[in-house]
Amino acid sequence: MKASWFNWVRIAAVALIAIWWVAPGFAQEPLPSWNDTAPKKAIVAFVERVTKPGSPDFVPPAERIATFDNDGTLWAEQPIYFQLAFAFDRVKVLAPQHPEWVTMEPFASLLKGDLKGALGGGEPAIFQIATVTHSGMTTDEFEKIVRDWIATAKHPTTGRLYTEMVYQPMLELLAYLRANGFKTFIVSGGGIDFIRVFAERVYGIPPEQVVGSSGKTRFELQDARPILMRLPEIDFINDGPGKPVGINAHIGRRPIAAFGNSDGDLQMLEWAKGGSGVRFALIVHHTDAEREWAYDRNSSVGKLDKALDAAQAEGWTIVDMKNDWKRVFSFEGK
Amino acid sequence: MKASWFNWVRIAAVALIAIWWVAPGFAQEPLPSWNDTAPKKAIVAFVERVTKPGSPDFVPPAERIATFDNDGTLWAEQPIYFQLAFAFDRVKVLAPQHPEWVTMEPFASLLKGDLKGALGGGEPAIFQIATVTHSGMTTDEFEKIVRDWIATAKHPTTGRLYTEMVYQPMLELLAYLRANGFKTFIVSGGGIDFIRVFAERVYGIPPEQVVGSSGKTRFELQDARPILMRLPEIDFINDGPGKPVGINAHIGRRPIAAFGNSDGDLQMLEWAKGGSGVRFALIVHHTDAEREWAYDRNSSVGKLDKALDAAQAEGWTIVDMKNDWKRVFSFEGK
Repeated sequence: MKASWFNWVRIAAVALIAIWWVAPGFAQEPLPSWNDTAPKKAIVAFVERVTKPGSPDFVPPAERIATFDNDGTLWAEQPIYFQLAFAFDRVKVLAPQHPEWVTMEPFASLLKGDLKGALGGGEPAIFQIATVTHSGMTTDEFEKIVRDWIATAKHPTTGRLYTEMVYQPMLELLAYLRANGFKTFIVSGGGIDFIRVFAERVYGIPPEQVVGSSGKTRFELQDARPILMRLPEIDFINDGPGKPVGINAHIGRRPIAAFGNSDGDLQMLEWAKGGSGVRFALIVHHTDAEREWAYDRNSSVGKLDKALDAAQAEGWTIVDMKNDWKRVFSFEGK
Repeated sequence: MKASWFNWVRIAAVALIAIWWVAPGFAQEPLPSWNDTAPKKAIVAFVERVTKPGSPDFVPPAERIATFDNDGTLWAEQPIYFQLAFAFDRVKVLAPQHPEWVTMEPFASLLKGDLKGALGGGEPAIFQIATVTHSGMTTDEFEKIVRDWIATAKHPTTGRLYTEMVYQPMLELLAYLRANGFKTFIVSGGGIDFIRVFAERVYGIPPEQVVGSSGKTRFELQDARPILMRLPEIDFINDGPGKPVGINAHIGRRPIAAFGNSDGDLQMLEWAKGGSGVRFALIVHHTDAEREWAYDRNSSVGKLDKALDAAQAEGWTIVDMKNDWKRVFSFEGK
């Protein structure tokens, strides 16, 4: 008797939660920060096609996989990739323990504030900086370092926290897709363990749904305590043709929708579009020099050239940030 | 007006679904195929501790990560690992295209049915067999090959489909954990792309929650069609100390509960137990020569020696299959 009474209380509670959950869905228009232009219409049309039961284009929820690039797609990437800013800040913090850096490139230039000189060494210089800042500690220690940095570090031109430099329309798009049964993943050229630290809080994407570049780690017992040590060795570069490889390794299913902004995303979009059934590919084109930055074919950061050609040739959706987004950042107008 | 009417219909529908969903929860005892012995009690006590709101041991749902070994933990692994049986069957299928195999080891012995001779070459022989059967095709083609095989291939001693050789008590455990907000993962030394083909259907575990050993793949355009080609190169061995590494790479969170049956699972269990808060580690001990197989310290398949010592020393939960499980397979007694 008692169990039955509890049962009805539980049912009533669940019903109330259901009302609370269903009701706002009718009140609110999706994607409020998007203008009513072609990209928004294309997104909504795609979602309605694949979610409508009985439709020939219906896709079961388990297969509604959507993958998003991070830098330049979910958050900004100018004037330098934010993870590079993290690495530079770490070099400054670590410098007192490395007196030899005063005369050793690329550290010497970096510590003098000469970014151009530091990066003059090209990929080997960046690899050296990445190595000293991203390896030689446990995975738990690295997570804490990133967590502390991202809680306080400010963007050099806007003075905002880096986690405020996320695109409001893309946050709404993530939420809209999830509300329609999609599972959203980040598939980034950036470091997997760097992004995981804030992806859940900022994007609502849990660590297990983040795919990115990685270094090797090794299991060790340190004073009988199990740890994972971060080694100074590249494991995988999740960029360009690496993105479909990373998607297959981590997700094991082909996305039905993919979102990017640069040539590093081209193969991911091709991979998503190459599957059977209805597919969606979208390029965020940085066209707004006032609210954000305007750059594409000749940019050293987030270069968009071949992927723009492909998007135009294949009829993928191209977001013109200036004309298609009502606002870019949530802090605008505040 | 119309929207509001639809709204109430939707609410009523959700409420009905809620009733249907809540009601059976009261009727059914969890883990019906488990005897009421120590392991079942330990599992239930652990789940109740970490899920009770307000308890000092409460773990938020997002962090309720549980990892399961596959061979010998979720399904049987005798007389040989099932994926090896798949590889042997593939060698037979492919033999007509490879007349040279008639005189070439390990294929020659294998084709004569001399398993012992074929495996006499040790790891290089196994690697050779794995290479010709697991690479040289696209990821889509491999998936189809496994799907076709597993739909029909029979276990050599029971005559059952391999997917029937799963442990009923473990299926119930997976369901029980998920009903309590856990996210369940497979973390196997077996091939990630092999397990993914049936894990969703058989275990309710989607491809993106399977971690395993892998070969390298390469993105290519084949007649303008994007494909992933499986290369004859090992990418990662997800076994022993590789399991915590694989868990970190794919999940990015430390499991709070881990389940295994052999020395290959030792480090995964140590890794799970090494985190803060309440943790759970369980070893399935194969003690039932009648309903299944009895083996541990001296077995060439699923050797359980060091992990058994560790489990005893550390007080991990040890399942004695003979005494703790009411039934092993769902087909028993049919």
